Amino acid sequence: MARWEPDARGRLAQAALELYLERGFDQATVAEIAERAGLTERTFFRHYGDKREVLFGGQEALHELISKIIAEQPDSAAPMAAMGAALTAFAELLAQRRDFARQRQIVIDANASLQERELIKLTSLAATAASALRERGVTEPAASLAAEAGLAALRIAFARWIQAEDRELTEFVTEALQVLETVTAGR
Amino acid sequence: MARWEPDARGRLAQAALELYLERGFDQATVAEIAERAGLTERTFFRHYGDKREVLFGGQEALHELISKIIAEQPDSAAPMAAMGAALTAFAELLAQRRDFARQRQIVIDANASLQERELIKLTSLAATAASALRERGVTEPAASLAAEAGLAALRIAFARWIQAEDRELTEFVTEALQVLETVTAGR
Repeated sequence: MARWEPDARGRLAQAALELYLERGFDQATVAEIAERAGLTERTFFRHYGDKREVLFGGQEALHELISKIIAEQPDSAAPMAAMGAALTAFAELLAQRRDFARQRQIVIDANASLQERELIKLTSLAATAASALRERGVTEPAASLAAEAGLAALRIAFARWIQAEDRELTEFVTEALQVLETVTAGR
Repeated sequence: MARWEPDARGRLAQAALELYLERGFDQATVAEIAERAGLTERTFFRHYGDKREVLFGGQEALHELISKIIAEQPDSAAPMAAMGAALTAFAELLAQRRDFARQRQIVIDANASLQERELIKLTSLAATAASALRERGVTEPAASLAAEAGLAALRIAFARWIQAEDRELTEFVTEALQVLETVTAGR
């Protein structure tokens, strides 16, 4: 019978991230991750399908969050207002785990195949957002443009936030959406 | 000594695309491509590094085009105006090879790893555009936002164009940039 391990999932994630940072994602092994967390490989695989899932787990929850927030906005909300609400909720979630988010990004920036995975993840989230906007009656290409430009704004805001100590991620997101408005208006 | 083969490169590309459409990208072999083009495998490898390069070749030229067009715009041009000029030049290039572009897209849409490659290609073009904008003195996050939103607009315009017989790609690009402006303004 499996022993109950207090916060095994969190300890494994922290141990994994430390090893990815120290040795590189490709070099770190599940055995080492489990050892550092004081747990077994078997426990690792009860929580994560593989090494990559430590970095990319929980995506269904993100898709659901984005769909739900967009659907919940009042009928009067413009597409970008609905998108902005979803991005803010996403940003608040990321901000709760700032250290993890920052370390995770350093690991990803150091590995081309993880960068590709991250790109695919963001594109897939944009597709979910576009679909939720269409369900509100937003037509194409507005739905896809709002979704893709919005996710680009979040990504750019995120990159600025993890390098800055002094401001909240939500502030960077609001700023990015404002700059997006200004820059797309000046043609 | 290599025999001179009239338009070997074009014939190989056409044969490859036909086979990718008929049998799927993964199933088609270089031997079959060469045979269909009436050429040798050796000739194939004089023109393309591998099967994938038939679909993704010529990227340096695209990066150069985007950088050059953005750099050439008058000092008075707003970031999105410079970006729009680059997108229009890119669109004109694609439009010259409409059949190839359409068939290529069908092949890519049918294959997850080619979709990833395409995504990486577009992200890399956005990075080049952002860099060219920064060289014009555009600050961040405006440069990255203009570049990423602009490339998203091109991608969305392209997807609409290959399904529509009646309008030019450049019209779809102009429309997408207009919708982007409208949608980002309504927050």
